[in-house]
Amino acid sequence: MAIEIKGLTKRSENYSQWYNELVVKADLAEQSAVRGCMVIKPYGYAIWEKMQQTLDRMFKETGVQNAYFPLLIPKSFLCREAEHVEGFAKECAVVTHYRLKNDPNGKGVVVDPDARLEEELIVRPTSETIIWGTYKNWIHSYRDLPVLCNQWANVMRWEMRTRMFLRTSEFLWQEGHCAHATAEESEARTVQMINLYADFAEKYMAMPVIKGVKSANERFAGALNTYTIEAMMQDGKALQSGTSHNLGQNFAKAFDVTFVNKDNKPEYVWANSWGVSTRLMGALIMTHSDDNGLVLPPHLAPIQVVIVPIFKNDEQLAAITEKVMPIVERLTQLGISVKYDDADNKRPGFKFADYELKGVPVRLAIGARDVENGTVELMRRDTLEKETLQLAGIADHINTLLEDIQANIYNKALKMREEKTYICDSYDEFKERIEDGGFFLCHWDGTTETEERIKEETKATIRCIPLDGDDTPGVCMVTGKPSARRVIIARNY
Amino acid sequence: MAIEIKGLTKRSENYSQWYNELVVKADLAEQSAVRGCMVIKPYGYAIWEKMQQTLDRMFKETGVQNAYFPLLIPKSFLCREAEHVEGFAKECAVVTHYRLKNDPNGKGVVVDPDARLEEELIVRPTSETIIWGTYKNWIHSYRDLPVLCNQWANVMRWEMRTRMFLRTSEFLWQEGHCAHATAEESEARTVQMINLYADFAEKYMAMPVIKGVKSANERFAGALNTYTIEAMMQDGKALQSGTSHNLGQNFAKAFDVTFVNKDNKPEYVWANSWGVSTRLMGALIMTHSDDNGLVLPPHLAPIQVVIVPIFKNDEQLAAITEKVMPIVERLTQLGISVKYDDADNKRPGFKFADYELKGVPVRLAIGARDVENGTVELMRRDTLEKETLQLAGIADHINTLLEDIQANIYNKALKMREEKTYICDSYDEFKERIEDGGFFLCHWDGTTETEERIKEETKATIRCIPLDGDDTPGVCMVTGKPSARRVIIARNY
Repeated sequence: MAIEIKGLTKRSENYSQWYNELVVKADLAEQSAVRGCMVIKPYGYAIWEKMQQTLDRMFKETGVQNAYFPLLIPKSFLCREAEHVEGFAKECAVVTHYRLKNDPNGKGVVVDPDARLEEELIVRPTSETIIWGTYKNWIHSYRDLPVLCNQWANVMRWEMRTRMFLRTSEFLWQEGHCAHATAEESEARTVQMINLYADFAEKYMAMPVIKGVKSANERFAGALNTYTIEAMMQDGKALQSGTSHNLGQNFAKAFDVTFVNKDNKPEYVWANSWGVSTRLMGALIMTHSDDNGLVLPPHLAPIQVVIVPIFKNDEQLAAITEKVMPIVERLTQLGISVKYDDADNKRPGFKFADYELKGVPVRLAIGARDVENGTVELMRRDTLEKETLQLAGIADHINTLLEDIQANIYNKALKMREEKTYICDSYDEFKERIEDGGFFLCHWDGTTETEERIKEETKATIRCIPLDGDDTPGVCMVTGKPSARRVIIARNY
Repeated sequence: MAIEIKGLTKRSENYSQWYNELVVKADLAEQSAVRGCMVIKPYGYAIWEKMQQTLDRMFKETGVQNAYFPLLIPKSFLCREAEHVEGFAKECAVVTHYRLKNDPNGKGVVVDPDARLEEELIVRPTSETIIWGTYKNWIHSYRDLPVLCNQWANVMRWEMRTRMFLRTSEFLWQEGHCAHATAEESEARTVQMINLYADFAEKYMAMPVIKGVKSANERFAGALNTYTIEAMMQDGKALQSGTSHNLGQNFAKAFDVTFVNKDNKPEYVWANSWGVSTRLMGALIMTHSDDNGLVLPPHLAPIQVVIVPIFKNDEQLAAITEKVMPIVERLTQLGISVKYDDADNKRPGFKFADYELKGVPVRLAIGARDVENGTVELMRRDTLEKETLQLAGIADHINTLLEDIQANIYNKALKMREEKTYICDSYDEFKERIEDGGFFLCHWDGTTETEERIKEETKATIRCIPLDGDDTPGVCMVTGKPSARRVIIARNY
């Protein structure tokens, strides 16, 4: 596949364009022939797979099992929960027919009008309805609870404006759907999962996040309460990276899912749902990458170390390869994924730029003189620093270095967020400063009216009411009415 | 979830009903509210996940990478390859609208007529068209080749008669799509993948298969040649378990995908595609299971060993648990998945029946007297044989035993297939004997007419022209015309 490396727009010139270009140039994804849908290319998918594997293991450690529910949802199911249908049924892909036929008037095929479905089917925008329709058969007694299911699936929401990974009509995600015997247990699971997402974001994506609760306005359609993790991108905008919803008994009531409790009385089941999506790819890219391309956290990089030989002839290559092989072996032993790129149809300079663009955390370059001296040149992608090191012990050095890089990019992102997080008590000041991005810790009177006014006047929204941090009451910066605590307001993706 | 164990129909009474009941009773899957679509329940999904993980590793070892392509395919794409549209466009889910709106005449929502798509989108029945439409952008030079992509995805084919796992409107699968510079290389990959599927079937599913080529009539729509693996179920019917298609240059021509070859000349790219699906779950169930329930091959069993304590009080349980823990630890060390079921709300007898139904390969039962004697009762699921063994060294014994069970159920299935495979040279005899099932090695004149006559008169089809075995020429059992070699004829799922 032809790779064009040059000409990546600088972040400072146009952050948005930088992102769009980087997604394509780093071979992560591309637009497809279908409006709003992307193709996730092998390199991008390899990163997503690492995320999936890690999350899947973390879910299972908490007792969650995977299952699979139908792609298509009967229209009537969506309507059962009043808020839910308002939130999701409006922009969705609708299957109306189940057959095409040869065009009687010419070439090609047309929809067969005789094959109209009695009831339209919706390509799932999320699966609460079909799953709670199913749970009705699974749950009868408190002994059947909890049910802790997750599914890895594709979903569709007919988005008008799309951007690769951030907002696409089809996207990949996981959706967990738990059923519990008590409100307390369900709430505990809801919180457990947002904590799990925060751990994943911080330990694997090296992305600091703020855990919080959504305002009523930003809540999931049908939820009592939505927990969120919010990350700051390098342009100071927020990116909602994962959500966990306490659904109360809303879906159990909509689908009549009851259980006999320990006192032998029927009761509606308590529900929560939680999900992250390929949107995390966008968050990952925008949190760490720079004007040279991707910067991947070692814990999610498909290739953690690349070794590039610099040679003029086969003899030199053979001598280099002899030195490299034990390093490859040792790295592999240590569980580090390494690629030895000895292809002779590309120049080292091209390879360097390509692996930089692709965000490989550590690059080794080794030439004929290095072989003589027993040395190797190491470059770390996060700082672009180079140093010449002894070959002996290099694998173990890299093993430590990868953890350093992981910690370094996390700290860098955290520092940036801290620098761009402001306490603000004046709405006028807020309106001015929001133009430059950042998280604003402001007092808000808790009303939807004020929230909508802020949004209308500044395009900023209440990202969350943080779970941690300063919870001192105050007065709303807009209305002067009482405020329970500061919330985070920002523009967002 | 309530489990009803009793009343599984016997295979000898009604094989088809036995299968349908077993799928539900063993908690593998159930019908959903959407016609022809199933819910794959956690236990069923855990088996599918083991298949996925194994296949995914095997694919990657051959250089294949995963990617993801859109769910929806523009109608015009399907029409580009003439045979392909004939084969697939007729029975498919068609998305015609992208919005619902509140019903102006009442409750609920209706399709918004203003949100009609200019061009209908088809829920993918298979992805050759969208993928080759994409490859056009990826492939320019021989240096871009080969492209070796796979995707794990859901697909839909609007089936009129459905059976769980075997034939459902939506199913899960993987589809590999490779692009090559030469016909030879593409053919070699096509064969490599059918060999890989056969290895997987035999080594992991413990299911013997016959590798062969499909007749023109049974070929994939748009392929030059389809390779297949065919397995025999216990009722003597065939189940096509995986296919690999040599697509020649058909899709490259349809989507105008050319590359500049080493001689600097433009040439169409050579293609193949290959897939297996959740149908394999049906094959797995029907190959090994018995009147007591599932029999799972140890290599794919989510739980390989279950340990059931038999106790009257907490003191006894504590004594048993003390003995059991080191065994659990040792089994885990050996990479064996083990469940210690010390739940006190179910009786041992119930647990025994449940784990038998679920096909757990090895069951240990341990009571108070066993603790005194340092013994344990072991039952292997494949033969239902029980023996009392010393606790010392039990984990290592099980490690060997699991391999024995794996080999035993493979050999049992192979023996059954051999016993039900017949050489037959008389069409009258064939018509009589096919009623009892089995594979018939018969001479066939190679024409579609004869093939269709056989199908019409006997409901049997040519499953494949085997790659191995007796290739002596002869005369067609139906027409007496020359036959290149015997083919396999059978009724099938």
